[in-house]
Amino acid sequence: MSKSYSVAILGATGAVGKELLQLLESRNFPVDNLKLLASARSAGQTLPFKGENLPVEAVSDDAFDNVDIVLASAGGSISKVWAPIAVAAGAVVIDNSSAFRMNPEVPLVVPEVNPQAAANHTGIIANPNCTTILMALAVYPLHQVKPVQRIVAATYQSASGAGAKAMAEVTTQTSAILQGKKPVAEVFPYPLAFNLFPHNSPLNDLGYCEEEMKMVNETRKIFGNQDIRITATCVRVPVLRAHSEAINLEFATPFAVEAAREILSNSPGIKLVENWETNHFPMPIEASGQDDVLVGRIRQDISHPCGLELWLCGDQIRKGAALNAVQIAELLVEKNILKPMASYVSS
Amino acid sequence: MSKSYSVAILGATGAVGKELLQLLESRNFPVDNLKLLASARSAGQTLPFKGENLPVEAVSDDAFDNVDIVLASAGGSISKVWAPIAVAAGAVVIDNSSAFRMNPEVPLVVPEVNPQAAANHTGIIANPNCTTILMALAVYPLHQVKPVQRIVAATYQSASGAGAKAMAEVTTQTSAILQGKKPVAEVFPYPLAFNLFPHNSPLNDLGYCEEEMKMVNETRKIFGNQDIRITATCVRVPVLRAHSEAINLEFATPFAVEAAREILSNSPGIKLVENWETNHFPMPIEASGQDDVLVGRIRQDISHPCGLELWLCGDQIRKGAALNAVQIAELLVEKNILKPMASYVSS
Repeated sequence: MSKSYSVAILGATGAVGKELLQLLESRNFPVDNLKLLASARSAGQTLPFKGENLPVEAVSDDAFDNVDIVLASAGGSISKVWAPIAVAAGAVVIDNSSAFRMNPEVPLVVPEVNPQAAANHTGIIANPNCTTILMALAVYPLHQVKPVQRIVAATYQSASGAGAKAMAEVTTQTSAILQGKKPVAEVFPYPLAFNLFPHNSPLNDLGYCEEEMKMVNETRKIFGNQDIRITATCVRVPVLRAHSEAINLEFATPFAVEAAREILSNSPGIKLVENWETNHFPMPIEASGQDDVLVGRIRQDISHPCGLELWLCGDQIRKGAALNAVQIAELLVEKNILKPMASYVSS
Repeated sequence: MSKSYSVAILGATGAVGKELLQLLESRNFPVDNLKLLASARSAGQTLPFKGENLPVEAVSDDAFDNVDIVLASAGGSISKVWAPIAVAAGAVVIDNSSAFRMNPEVPLVVPEVNPQAAANHTGIIANPNCTTILMALAVYPLHQVKPVQRIVAATYQSASGAGAKAMAEVTTQTSAILQGKKPVAEVFPYPLAFNLFPHNSPLNDLGYCEEEMKMVNETRKIFGNQDIRITATCVRVPVLRAHSEAINLEFATPFAVEAAREILSNSPGIKLVENWETNHFPMPIEASGQDDVLVGRIRQDISHPCGLELWLCGDQIRKGAALNAVQIAELLVEKNILKPMASYVSS
């Protein structure tokens, strides 16, 4: 990793964008030039990186010239427009939006789970949905030992999943309620302060919301297994930046709790948090700002002979988004697979 | 119901106690004399009832003389001491604590589900756990049509489940955090403001907490069916007074969503809240202060051919505790089963 790279962050001023900037610095990613790109509205701001204040530029047709890696986190519609332009300019795009995730040409990568998939990219690599990443990280090590048959998940998702404005909205609403005022909801359809509601992404004909279907479809793609049966209830809760998940797993044969605990305590990206004496298990306030996903309350499901229950919390902005993207970038550099395979073939 | 009764509330100054008082008034329960009982520490306070300020008395050996009905909501250890004394004095005790719930002599009653069980009382009738009542109300109407085989539940429980002090603690913690101060946790083991954690009741050897085992064991007792397999993950969330639950149901054969919706829209104590266009489903802020449990997001489980998913919110203090207790009292009066069966037998 002696070489260094020209990196662009698209959506630099958002919650994930700012975290990307911090992670590139704290993880000492080999950056020789960093471009901060955003909408024209955000252009002119500056953001700190390695002691300097870097200017935010408006994204434009020539913004990706000489850029090696684009970390895109500006939403699906922005990615759909700019990712192909960046790829045409010779960059690899690690895209945090849902725009390309289910595209069969695009690898969907959690580096601890399916790093090999990254090698097949043709310019774009998709970063999975945050809730999916956290679940995949905890379930895959068990799945490798004994294939999981069915997953029943219920989520407790923080405001950060809807961006920096949503986080600010929850704080403002909370403050209003404490002052006896009516909370105002603009980012979310309903007040989230002292409240919660099923995830407000669009619903399909079966009554599942997009967030739930991401957990179903993306998990199958990441695991490379279309047979896993998955259902989820995704719920937004008044927590700022870490998601929690109650996960019920069914296997074909019993999975010993002790074996599961042993496996998860040795799995990358996971920290076991289980103190049965003090009833101390993963909590959002302890997962926030952490790279690891906290996993605990691993127990035999008393309703199913081949079932396991587990509970996890993970930082939605970090491992759920920015960290996973930076880890993909690190993987590309480390394995020297930055150039699209298509380019190798055609050269 | 032309007769009227002497009623005592044990634990009158708590969150549930105050709600009992309001419900006796608003539902026009035939009270001819109301005694407010609490610990010596709370004695001397007054609470409003039908335009009067009633004094709170310290509970004592002769406090239950000439009392017909005791609504007890002062915790298990208090009920264990005073319920037998009240019964010996000739009263029927409707006990909100967990002290007698699993006692085979004691009916555990949700009036919409198993009113017939109340007739078998020998002086004490137990009010089920709040989370269990809400789930039972939504699941039983379906179970009557097609027996449920397995339930996988995840809960989102409000602070009120731990009493008025817990509700105040969450508000105080929230206010502290907004002012940049460290939240103090005294009632709960960890800060609940902008956080959540697995329910902090004691854990058994299988890793299930008491709250979860209540959902398992009490549901089986209420349904009169020991074969239902139930697992639950109970979680406290920073919401003030309504619990929410994500419930996954498995039947022996498929259960049509439309049939389930039709059944639940005609079931007592339930209000269907489902607007698929506006993504409007049950929320704690809309369930708070309501008698009905709000149920919605009823959908075929895409991971199981005989599965249904549903989502509910219910006021923990009201239907989860005080309202159910008052409904039991109304049932006793209406069916004229106030006197313990044992008394009928021996007289």
